[in-house]
Amino acid sequence: MRSIIDIADFTLEEIRQLIATGEEIAANPGAWADRARGKLLATLFFEPSTRTRLSFEAAMARLGGATISVADGGSSGAAKGETVADTARVVGEYADLLTIRHPADGSALVAAEAATVPVVNSGDGGHFHPTQTLTELLTIHREFGRFGHLTVAFAGDLHYSRTVHSLISALSRFEGNRIVAVSPPELALGERTVRHLRANGTEVIEVSSLAEAVSQADALYMTRIQKERFGDPVMYERLKEVFVLDADVMRYAKPDMIVMHPLPRVNEIAMDVDSDPRARYFSQTRDGMLIRMALIDFLLRDAEARTEPEVRPERIREQAPAGDCPNPRCITRSDRSAVPFAYASPEGARCGFCDTRL
Amino acid sequence: MRSIIDIADFTLEEIRQLIATGEEIAANPGAWADRARGKLLATLFFEPSTRTRLSFEAAMARLGGATISVADGGSSGAAKGETVADTARVVGEYADLLTIRHPADGSALVAAEAATVPVVNSGDGGHFHPTQTLTELLTIHREFGRFGHLTVAFAGDLHYSRTVHSLISALSRFEGNRIVAVSPPELALGERTVRHLRANGTEVIEVSSLAEAVSQADALYMTRIQKERFGDPVMYERLKEVFVLDADVMRYAKPDMIVMHPLPRVNEIAMDVDSDPRARYFSQTRDGMLIRMALIDFLLRDAEARTEPEVRPERIREQAPAGDCPNPRCITRSDRSAVPFAYASPEGARCGFCDTRL
Amino acid sequence: MRSIIDIADFTLEEIRQLIATGEEIAANPGAWADRARGKLLATLFFEPSTRTRLSFEAAMARLGGATISVADGGSSGAAKGETVADTARVVGEYADLLTIRHPADGSALVAAEAATVPVVNSGDGGHFHPTQTLTELLTIHREFGRFGHLTVAFAGDLHYSRTVHSLISALSRFEGNRIVAVSPPELALGERTVRHLRANGTEVIEVSSLAEAVSQADALYMTRIQKERFGDPVMYERLKEVFVLDADVMRYAKPDMIVMHPLPRVNEIAMDVDSDPRARYFSQTRDGMLIRMALIDFLLRDAEARTEPEVRPERIREQAPAGDCPNPRCITRSDRSAVPFAYASPEGARCGFCDTRL
Repeated sequence: MRSIIDIADFTLEEIRQLIATGEEIAANPGAWADRARGKLLATLFFEPSTRTRLSFEAAMARLGGATISVADGGSSGAAKGETVADTARVVGEYADLLTIRHPADGSALVAAEAATVPVVNSGDGGHFHPTQTLTELLTIHREFGRFGHLTVAFAGDLHYSRTVHSLISALSRFEGNRIVAVSPPELALGERTVRHLRANGTEVIEVSSLAEAVSQADALYMTRIQKERFGDPVMYERLKEVFVLDADVMRYAKPDMIVMHPLPRVNEIAMDVDSDPRARYFSQTRDGMLIRMALIDFLLRDAEARTEPEVRPERIREQAPAGDCPNPRCITRSDRSAVPFAYASPEGARCGFCDTRL
Repeated sequence: MRSIIDIADFTLEEIRQLIATGEEIAANPGAWADRARGKLLATLFFEPSTRTRLSFEAAMARLGGATISVADGGSSGAAKGETVADTARVVGEYADLLTIRHPADGSALVAAEAATVPVVNSGDGGHFHPTQTLTELLTIHREFGRFGHLTVAFAGDLHYSRTVHSLISALSRFEGNRIVAVSPPELALGERTVRHLRANGTEVIEVSSLAEAVSQADALYMTRIQKERFGDPVMYERLKEVFVLDADVMRYAKPDMIVMHPLPRVNEIAMDVDSDPRARYFSQTRDGMLIRMALIDFLLRDAEARTEPEVRPERIREQAPAGDCPNPRCITRSDRSAVPFAYASPEGARCGFCDTRL
Repeated sequence: MRSIIDIADFTLEEIRQLIATGEEIAANPGAWADRARGKLLATLFFEPSTRTRLSFEAAMARLGGATISVADGGSSGAAKGETVADTARVVGEYADLLTIRHPADGSALVAAEAATVPVVNSGDGGHFHPTQTLTELLTIHREFGRFGHLTVAFAGDLHYSRTVHSLISALSRFEGNRIVAVSPPELALGERTVRHLRANGTEVIEVSSLAEAVSQADALYMTRIQKERFGDPVMYERLKEVFVLDADVMRYAKPDMIVMHPLPRVNEIAMDVDSDPRARYFSQTRDGMLIRMALIDFLLRDAEARTEPEVRPERIREQAPAGDCPNPRCITRSDRSAVPFAYASPEGARCGFCDTRL
């Protein structure tokens, strides 16, 4: 039985296989209409994320399966002091598959270790959100027929955005990709990330204008710049304007470039881009449903086969107990069912739940 | 592909056809149990309206289809600044059909123009709620076998009630109907409405007591009088008593009169009427489910046929941009995806979203 | 047509039959996968109870049926002043079966009397919660193959816990059971209850330590001690420690004893018991789904047979109207659709809704 906490839980071969399944479903959805008949998915959302929840529930329905749902887990057993582990353990008795969204980093791993059914992480705080990255990989593959030898530009908040880091990391596992980065200095990718990417053979180019980034890109990944990231509101107002994609900027783009965005968008893509045939940010949400169909099918079949997967080294608990994790949003800080443990990484010991360096 | 914002989006012939389908389903529900198998409805409620939401979801289930649901859209992407258009565009990627409830007048049209699937308005502020009116037409037709040559009495709040205006307007499209109106003067139908109805051949009789209205009616439509409509609470308390239907008043009614109410009722129908065989206000909710089954089937088949419907003149955008709409509850006032436009009506220019005169 | 308000609504024979069905489903779930195909359950939760709601919805899905759901009835028609009776009457027009959770004692009976479909009580305040007790009976029967001649220990809050009283009462209907009780004096079972049990042939033993209770038991039923039950927080902190089941205490237990808990647990069962093979509190939740499947099937078939069940004497309304019920949480105190009535019990007149002595 497999659970999916992080995109790194998949081998490259598994990613290719999931994407291929997603494309098969897109080509012939009718053939999948009864694939999960009689199966039950539980969506357990401790904070709202309507898009992700609906996407999972739609995916299950399109496979002929049913869903039970907690759309606002805040009003649930948690309010009575129940741990994430207990909640996951219980809900797993009802369902064949569980997906969880929770504000604490590492919460999905707690749920996966407690439940007797596969668990998919639908976002654990600022930590991981693997189905979002799978969605983006499907969009890229449906467009270009490959994962490598692409120039992908990232614009906006490259520092805090979980989805940016996750997609860049996934792209760096394939050969020949170039990353073009454009952001306010405060929200740059970060020297360490850039160094790490380059050391592993991924070319990274930092440019200073959106037009410059757009002109080189096969795919442009836009993100929202959040006001709360800036101490100075004047700075925010100024920067907000600089990183807006509109029809004018689109004139610099190749005719077959695609525009992606994890949504919701606010002002960073002007409405005049919506009708541009290169805009993929809406139709991309359909890819999200398709890849979740592929993933549900993958996990249900895997659970039936009763395989015992290899556990990633990071998930193996050392005997020596770890001290408190310094990350205030780590699940070990708020939930007594998460007993701290550490694993060794090249940079030193890390928290086994949230991967923060100890 | 059709969307339904207003009951006026249907021709009389289409209304007859929907009602006939509703009656067919009532007679033989089993024949419809797989009609929407494999199809997916999304209910997108930005404000709670449990009755309408459950009715739609029950209708979809009775047709063998599935539903994804946002029961409280307030906690959704909207909170992050997403427009109604973007939300509808995204959810339409998951589902085959979308129904929306939103507090702003004109919001359903915004959703319909953005989504790539049919949209049904489940109430856009105080503006339209077409499936409520269809429900009432089905109840009337199931009882009397016709839409015309009926005397329908309306009691209570005839000024602010959206459902009253919509049903009267629908009845006035059929021949020989008489409207009997009884209300506090503050909540009267309004001179302009009465004049308009008479000019178009519908007889309107205003009476001063509920008993008088009841004594003439084939159908009585009760509504709730809301305290907040009155500046003077004493006036409200006095009037509340006058417009209460109870067993005593029912003695004035014909033996085959029916009592309707859009629900929820508070005090305006006494509980001693509930067991009266003429009470239809509860069983009528079943008609709501039946007509939504008919409507879902109608729209799904229409979408599959890929017809391009004639656009009503009011929906065609003039090239000249309109100024701000004076209606503070208009969607153009709160949502940047709704760009104001106007259309010409006999009384002058109107807002293309909320139909307010500009 | 039957509704289920209380476990006492079942004869012993019916309980045996439901448990047998639950065990049949456990043995061969596939045979039940289409049993409720085309049927619709409505879950109407006026207060959150995620576990119970998900269990019912999972049960319906596992039978091939569909569900419409109000997860937070507080934001529904009730907010507009609708009575519980009206809400139940309306929702019953959409669904084939209704389950209700509501904070007021007696609310489920109001719903059952109003609805035209079977109603199951999913908890009416501190009053009844029959499917919880059925769950526990199934767990016991699956383990021991019998309902009688068992020693069942109850620990923690034996005074306020609704589930404790309900399970003890159910066990006392079978022969040869012994109840072992251990609790702080403030939270004891109560002299009247003990006397009543003994008078009806059930042995009751009150002991002073958890270890002592555990050493005798075939099954141990743990409950949560709630802080708000104590005036003195120091007392609470002290007692909390005393009634904790951990691996140390488990050493006193028989090798085939089982540990049950209605969940959520907080601290009263230490996490080191979770991996003990005698722990049943998690896997028991699956029994909850199984018994609800059996119950849904029982009620749907009963409704189709159109039987008219015998009404329990307590449910027959006397002609003489009762005065106000003294229980402040009684539905008659908050909802005008619940007209007070009384019935005669050995201890004198009782409220027909909440069973409080008048």
